[in-house]
Amino acid sequence: MTACTDTAAWAALQGHFEAHGRSLDLREAFARDAGRLAALTFEAPEVYADLSKNLLDTATLRFLLDLARERGVEARRDAMFRGDAVNSTEGRAVLHTALRAPPGTAPFGTEVHDVLEAMLDHAENVRKDWTITDVVNIGIGGSDLGPQMVVKALDAYTQAGQRLHFVSNIDGHDLMPLLDRLQANKTLFIIASKTFTTQETMANAHAARDWFLSQGGQHIERHFIATTTNVEAAAAFGIHTTFGFWDWVGGRYSLWSAIGLPIAIAVGAERFRELLAGAHAMDRHFAETAAERNLPLLLGLLDVWYRNFHGFTSRSVAPYHQGLARLPAYLQQLEMESNGKRVDEAGHALPFGTSPVVWGEPGTNGQHAYFQMLHQGTDVIPVEFIAVKTPSHTQAEQHRKLLANCLAQSQALMLGKTAAEAATEAAPTAAPDIDPAVLAQHRSFPGNRPSTTFVLDALTPRSLGALIAMYEHRVFTSGAVWGINSFDQWGVELGKALAGALLPRLKSGDTAGLDASTAALLQRLHS
Amino acid sequence: MTACTDTAAWAALQGHFEAHGRSLDLREAFARDAGRLAALTFEAPEVYADLSKNLLDTATLRFLLDLARERGVEARRDAMFRGDAVNSTEGRAVLHTALRAPPGTAPFGTEVHDVLEAMLDHAENVRKDWTITDVVNIGIGGSDLGPQMVVKALDAYTQAGQRLHFVSNIDGHDLMPLLDRLQANKTLFIIASKTFTTQETMANAHAARDWFLSQGGQHIERHFIATTTNVEAAAAFGIHTTFGFWDWVGGRYSLWSAIGLPIAIAVGAERFRELLAGAHAMDRHFAETAAERNLPLLLGLLDVWYRNFHGFTSRSVAPYHQGLARLPAYLQQLEMESNGKRVDEAGHALPFGTSPVVWGEPGTNGQHAYFQMLHQGTDVIPVEFIAVKTPSHTQAEQHRKLLANCLAQSQALMLGKTAAEAATEAAPTAAPDIDPAVLAQHRSFPGNRPSTTFVLDALTPRSLGALIAMYEHRVFTSGAVWGINSFDQWGVELGKALAGALLPRLKSGDTAGLDASTAALLQRLHS
Repeated sequence: MTACTDTAAWAALQGHFEAHGRSLDLREAFARDAGRLAALTFEAPEVYADLSKNLLDTATLRFLLDLARERGVEARRDAMFRGDAVNSTEGRAVLHTALRAPPGTAPFGTEVHDVLEAMLDHAENVRKDWTITDVVNIGIGGSDLGPQMVVKALDAYTQAGQRLHFVSNIDGHDLMPLLDRLQANKTLFIIASKTFTTQETMANAHAARDWFLSQGGQHIERHFIATTTNVEAAAAFGIHTTFGFWDWVGGRYSLWSAIGLPIAIAVGAERFRELLAGAHAMDRHFAETAAERNLPLLLGLLDVWYRNFHGFTSRSVAPYHQGLARLPAYLQQLEMESNGKRVDEAGHALPFGTSPVVWGEPGTNGQHAYFQMLHQGTDVIPVEFIAVKTPSHTQAEQHRKLLANCLAQSQALMLGKTAAEAATEAAPTAAPDIDPAVLAQHRSFPGNRPSTTFVLDALTPRSLGALIAMYEHRVFTSGAVWGINSFDQWGVELGKALAGALLPRLKSGDTAGLDASTAALLQRLHS
Repeated sequence: MTACTDTAAWAALQGHFEAHGRSLDLREAFARDAGRLAALTFEAPEVYADLSKNLLDTATLRFLLDLARERGVEARRDAMFRGDAVNSTEGRAVLHTALRAPPGTAPFGTEVHDVLEAMLDHAENVRKDWTITDVVNIGIGGSDLGPQMVVKALDAYTQAGQRLHFVSNIDGHDLMPLLDRLQANKTLFIIASKTFTTQETMANAHAARDWFLSQGGQHIERHFIATTTNVEAAAAFGIHTTFGFWDWVGGRYSLWSAIGLPIAIAVGAERFRELLAGAHAMDRHFAETAAERNLPLLLGLLDVWYRNFHGFTSRSVAPYHQGLARLPAYLQQLEMESNGKRVDEAGHALPFGTSPVVWGEPGTNGQHAYFQMLHQGTDVIPVEFIAVKTPSHTQAEQHRKLLANCLAQSQALMLGKTAAEAATEAAPTAAPDIDPAVLAQHRSFPGNRPSTTFVLDALTPRSLGALIAMYEHRVFTSGAVWGINSFDQWGVELGKALAGALLPRLKSGDTAGLDASTAALLQRLHS
């Protein structure tokens, strides 16, 4: 496959960017084109997406869609859904979509639904077991971020009486203070590790078991279960209840699998099925909707446009819902681990940027922290707002204030304020002796800063499932355009190997053969 | 003042960058220069800093120090400590350093210590009041991020029996689920707002008071206190206990003031004093140490080097301590709100980048999420590791694993792995039929990726105070070089004003005069 920079569509996009893209002004674009809003807003299952405050127009979309066609994005999508080994470096299929497909509609349907039913049954049993007050999920990366993010987001659906906890870090300051607050005979531990060998997870699992026994805990087999494929190793640990998955479930796409067990315990089988159904609806949208109205596909193309033409290096995610506080961390893994690659599938170095940095905090908190930079910094950083119409609480006026802030931020980013406008407004906190013309410069905003707003009617299992699947397919799309394998993660290997080599040295203090910096750090830290 | 790009030192730096900086290879630099480590490691109070894995050498430092001299960084620092109105647009002094200075050694010593003693006395009384099981701090931005980050970091010093909670978001999904778990007569609310008018904080304060009364709570004046200067408004709310501060305490520098009350309640007066003492020690280091060994100053210069010469647009912070999980969010405000500016003090537009994006998650969690991109992505992103030698728990082997991972990551970023090296190693999960040469490309790492490692002997109130002050002065330094006012935040105004205008429309549905996008969103969201 040729590099995407060598396609005709890329050259056309470059021409379009130089002629129109770079200089597009959002305020003028809205004034000029009464059809802009309709052309750049999209409906997908559970998600309304307003892309009209982005630095593109319908011409840009046409060029981007040409690029998607020339890069065979849809054919690659179909191959993924079909179960082809699109993870080429590992020779694996990529079938998280099969985890949320109704029986008989996707590959591996029987296996998937057998495990799903068993897992949901077990979750319901745990929910009914009122001797269990605390459930601790021990896992890291995909075995942590997905379930943790979803359980927090679906707080309104969580039954009282059982608390969910998530321990991931090998740092003992993660697990140990939590254990201090638990009682052994009331706690269920879920050890989440596909291989049952993940260093962090096993260290914490052993520490948890030691604690359990030291507290007089009885029946390890009742208080420890595992989501793993390594049934033997789990049995050796003392675990007899395991739920498995398959090599075509990538860690960062695994919350739909048995790894979702803590979600099912928190919200119950029925709600978990709704989460899957929401994701499945987005899968059908992605698989079947024409490219021109295909939301995840268009978002992936927007990401390419910003990264490779506008040159933006990061994207800020601002969910205006406290329940989505961990969505940015979840998306960091989804996007940066998938597309943080510098070679294409054929191993050729890429001459352009791939994954941006994805970061953010919930609104309105971010407004009181880093939004200063989004409005008045030197770099343009596209922002992604997520608004939820109906809250799960009854504070209607407070919710209106939240939404007013959300809309006001995208408005402010776009509209800006000229120094002349600023000069006409009072500034009670300004220095009394400052030159008004200087002050006006400080109080002006360039505007024309892009954002996307997603709207959900409510934050439900179904809408959350759809939202996450939208992000998955979006990342797939930009990866497909770039020609990279979005499903491997070779970049985690070197650090693991070097950590293994350093571990005995941290005990012995041996620094032979190390670089001077690492040697000095090791001397300082060993004990 | 001339723009920093017009100085002789800047031109010299540009020449140095073109001739040596751009092409510096860390592996060669260590091999070539046996003195590199000693020249690029620094001791400051409580903090050991290894800068040797960064893309600079002693020549670079000399050029950067020339720039600091030409920009008058030290004179500006002295002016800040002295209490000059270095926040020029608001005509205010900037004296967070005075909040941690011993009596008689800094401006406003009497006022500062009067409030400090009263605040600490009150904190001790709360700690002794065993009828209070839960303390809820309601504040946002600087009234939230600092205390929240510190309380989590100092978990090992927190007394059992009283839980601290932090509510910031105007989203009712922040406060309401928390209230469900509290009892009115056992809860103390701290309303933290300098003006007692902050929209989010007042909305949550009123919701908390409504809840308190609806639960049959008695004695508002005992269960609500405030950290504010607006004593009258607090009294109207029903609050009689207030602790104030001054207009020379910026929100993002306020944890050292009465805003630190939740910290003092969590860890006690003595530990709070140690936090202040640690920060003060770093203040003295910054104020008195020669530029060549002045850690915050050198870090600020490194930031300029990376941002303006190497062109790096973000910095990733990886604290290898779960207690520092919120440090990146805290630093986002500290750095991006301070230096996310596009005009200099005189109001001239700056022709170069200022604050980078600061982001991160604790290690080892990040390794299983976005570190893929740090190692194998297309962009170079400097990483900042924070390692703590002695844990507060007794899991020695687990702590060694944590530290081994921390050291291994900076080693891996620097050393990389060639395709030829990768080709000699087994890859059990690789596709069996993949071309080994292609696989080796996927498994290679470019290396030469820069990082800084900070080492603390332990995470104590004192070391944490020093670490935070180090970051404050670092941000001061880059801001001073750039010639911007790091102490205002005019960029938060426009969104506030627009939110105020949108709020009644969200109830009425009136969209007259709005841009088409905001109008459509409002129609979708109003109720």
